Amino acid sequence: MVEITSIDLLRGWPSADLLPTSILEEASKRVLNDPALSTPSLSYGDEPGYEPLRESIATWLLQQYNTPWTVPERICISGGASQNLACILQVFTDPTYTRNVYLVAPTYHLVCRIFEDNGFVGRLRAIPEDDDGVDIAYLEASLAKHEMESNGSDQKATKRPQVAQKHYKNIIYTVPTFSNPSGRTTSLDRRQQLVRLARKYDALIIADDIYDFIQWNSTDTNPPPPLIPRIVDIDHVLDGGPTTPFGNAISNASFSKILAPGLRTGWTEATPTFIRGLSQCGSSVSGGAPSQFVASVIAQTLRNGTLQDHIEKVLIPSYKRRYQATLCAIERYLLPLGVVLEGKTKGPMQGGYFVYFLLPPCILAKEFVLRASQDEAVLIADGNMFEVHGDEDAVPARHGVRICFAWEQEDFLAEGLRRLGKVLASMLEPEPSVVNGRSAINRISIES
Amino acid sequence: MVEITSIDLLRGWPSADLLPTSILEEASKRVLNDPALSTPSLSYGDEPGYEPLRESIATWLLQQYNTPWTVPERICISGGASQNLACILQVFTDPTYTRNVYLVAPTYHLVCRIFEDNGFVGRLRAIPEDDDGVDIAYLEASLAKHEMESNGSDQKATKRPQVAQKHYKNIIYTVPTFSNPSGRTTSLDRRQQLVRLARKYDALIIADDIYDFIQWNSTDTNPPPPLIPRIVDIDHVLDGGPTTPFGNAISNASFSKILAPGLRTGWTEATPTFIRGLSQCGSSVSGGAPSQFVASVIAQTLRNGTLQDHIEKVLIPSYKRRYQATLCAIERYLLPLGVVLEGKTKGPMQGGYFVYFLLPPCILAKEFVLRASQDEAVLIADGNMFEVHGDEDAVPARHGVRICFAWEQEDFLAEGLRRLGKVLASMLEPEPSVVNGRSAINRISIES
Repeated sequence: MVEITSIDLLRGWPSADLLPTSILEEASKRVLNDPALSTPSLSYGDEPGYEPLRESIATWLLQQYNTPWTVPERICISGGASQNLACILQVFTDPTYTRNVYLVAPTYHLVCRIFEDNGFVGRLRAIPEDDDGVDIAYLEASLAKHEMESNGSDQKATKRPQVAQKHYKNIIYTVPTFSNPSGRTTSLDRRQQLVRLARKYDALIIADDIYDFIQWNSTDTNPPPPLIPRIVDIDHVLDGGPTTPFGNAISNASFSKILAPGLRTGWTEATPTFIRGLSQCGSSVSGGAPSQFVASVIAQTLRNGTLQDHIEKVLIPSYKRRYQATLCAIERYLLPLGVVLEGKTKGPMQGGYFVYFLLPPCILAKEFVLRASQDEAVLIADGNMFEVHGDEDAVPARHGVRICFAWEQEDFLAEGLRRLGKVLASMLEPEPSVVNGRSAINRISIES
Repeated sequence: MVEITSIDLLRGWPSADLLPTSILEEASKRVLNDPALSTPSLSYGDEPGYEPLRESIATWLLQQYNTPWTVPERICISGGASQNLACILQVFTDPTYTRNVYLVAPTYHLVCRIFEDNGFVGRLRAIPEDDDGVDIAYLEASLAKHEMESNGSDQKATKRPQVAQKHYKNIIYTVPTFSNPSGRTTSLDRRQQLVRLARKYDALIIADDIYDFIQWNSTDTNPPPPLIPRIVDIDHVLDGGPTTPFGNAISNASFSKILAPGLRTGWTEATPTFIRGLSQCGSSVSGGAPSQFVASVIAQTLRNGTLQDHIEKVLIPSYKRRYQATLCAIERYLLPLGVVLEGKTKGPMQGGYFVYFLLPPCILAKEFVLRASQDEAVLIADGNMFEVHGDEDAVPARHGVRICFAWEQEDFLAEGLRRLGKVLASMLEPEPSVVNGRSAINRISIES
């Protein structure tokens, strides 16, 4: 038996060649060689996080999104999007007061456990989306249905809102730009509808905005089309702005996908009132603001422009090539077999880490994933992974398959999809016993 | 008016000269120059954290405590003790199942909010301690009283124990070695009693062991006396070992006080089953294990011995000198005025960051702190800060004052205490109106 090279289209990581070691080495050296930088970076920090990084992020975001309201007072440094989500839930929800967590589905799978760890077991609700984004009517029906139900109203509250704190009645979790896994981007119109709905039902929209900086122009237009506003920006401007000082949307962003996951650093943008509350999360205050040392290293890379250069000159060209190789191979090897591609942006921008497709209705992803691994040494993610815990049937994903194009190089992406085509073709072939004699089927009919 | 130099005896930080910038620069450089190190350090990590650091910690702890059971399977890397406490509560408590959180008081003040953020508002209980540590009888009476009460038993659980997870009925929080603020060290006997109590009442003892490495021999004996076993080690050996696979005690440790707070990295030691559960905390799994990059930098400092050298040759001698200067000045300026020193270790070891004393009964710490700041520009911590939120009266600390000797140099420590003596003397002096004429008092009596 000939061993074939394993191809990993499952792992949602940047490949090693995209990790900016020299940029980080230079920045670390600068921080540790200047006492004016090293002392604050190695000490306890201000509650909203390292001030120079907050300033640099504000300047950079303003340039990216043309949002003059993005100021340091709207930014809090985090220990990465996942750790920060736990902080947000600790401060802004109470498991006996907050009703449900609505997740746009298929959903980023590892997020479910963070909600469950914070007291929402059995109260995660899957909301479907189409090519324009979240199904607003479905979401509103669900919010309205639970509006009258008194989830926990007869229970003792386990928390009390503290200074600069508020508990929301509902949470909505979404990855609006290049969603994991679906690759979909929510349209401007849907984002606006989502904000209006959140205001109506006292919901906090937690937008996982970690793929926002990995997008590129898929057309020939110059300059490229503007980015779709983040939901937090829509909340800032829509219908006269937020209806409470806390607002109804936050951007949970990260340096994981634009520098390196191992840095464990991100940031949140929200109203200044929300940011003050978040900065008072007990573990952050006691710990002295998350990721202090690394935050000071990252601040250097933003200040001297090496981070921006890395995104523009290394990440975007690499991911663009890999994405195109992936799409091209899917078109060649899978679409002719009846696969349906989702999330391929119809708009002028492409990006993210993932491509998601649906297998023909007769093929279950679970079996396909197993065969791909066993027969062809290709690892891929089964759609079932991305169903919402406890609400799997609302938005089933048993025919979905996620491919990550961040980990492997172009040749391997193409080869991996060629092999997947081979697996799918073999699964679609009628069984020899069926082809060679209808008697097989007849026998079953007779015997049953 | 002559401005006098402000002296900060409030801030619980290491001073800038104790931050090991060159050690960290060398370690960062090594990590970022070797792809075998930089790639894992900048990527997502294994769930219990960076394996080489877990191995190095295990070897080092074994040497420190002579605990052959300390192996990597008993260690999980954390994002520092505070962030890790939030993870522990997310995984091992349910606010509707877990009854109370018992805090040895006076308590590290910033910890209260972490418990409150996780659903224990109104259920923090203060437990007094004497010079040997926690008052076991008081704690048992409180545990027994609440054993029969069904805190939340009629409420819907907000979580369900997941794989490798268990919810404890009670939490006990303590800083057993050189407590913040009291400076007290719990005796071996009390530690054993505490473990037995925890087993009896399904309690998890969370021992904040962050000052364990900052202790020195206060006698002339050579070799120095062995360290008092950590509570987690006592749980491992006492009466045949843990009565459940999860155990009843964990060590929550940190590199904040032995390298630098800004690194935001620590570790937990517990049973392998507990560690597996903790490593599955949703935010850690999704984030890819806490503090990955910094963990790899710290691993270098442990491997090449620079961390151990730094503790032995820089930190311990510096803190020892500062502690002695502080004690000496307290004896000279404050004890003659009726101040009572607490936590001054009677045993052969001294250490930690703090000295705690009680003012004469007629003087409130609140007023003393204000006068010290206004009249003499000395910042100190008022005992009230360290009362347990919501249970302040159980263990009041209104005459307590905490001095941190980590931030200022010896001369400033001595000068600060001299000024505090001046403040106290002036507060103890009878008011001139009282001295110069009893008529003042008489007038009040007549008029009232």
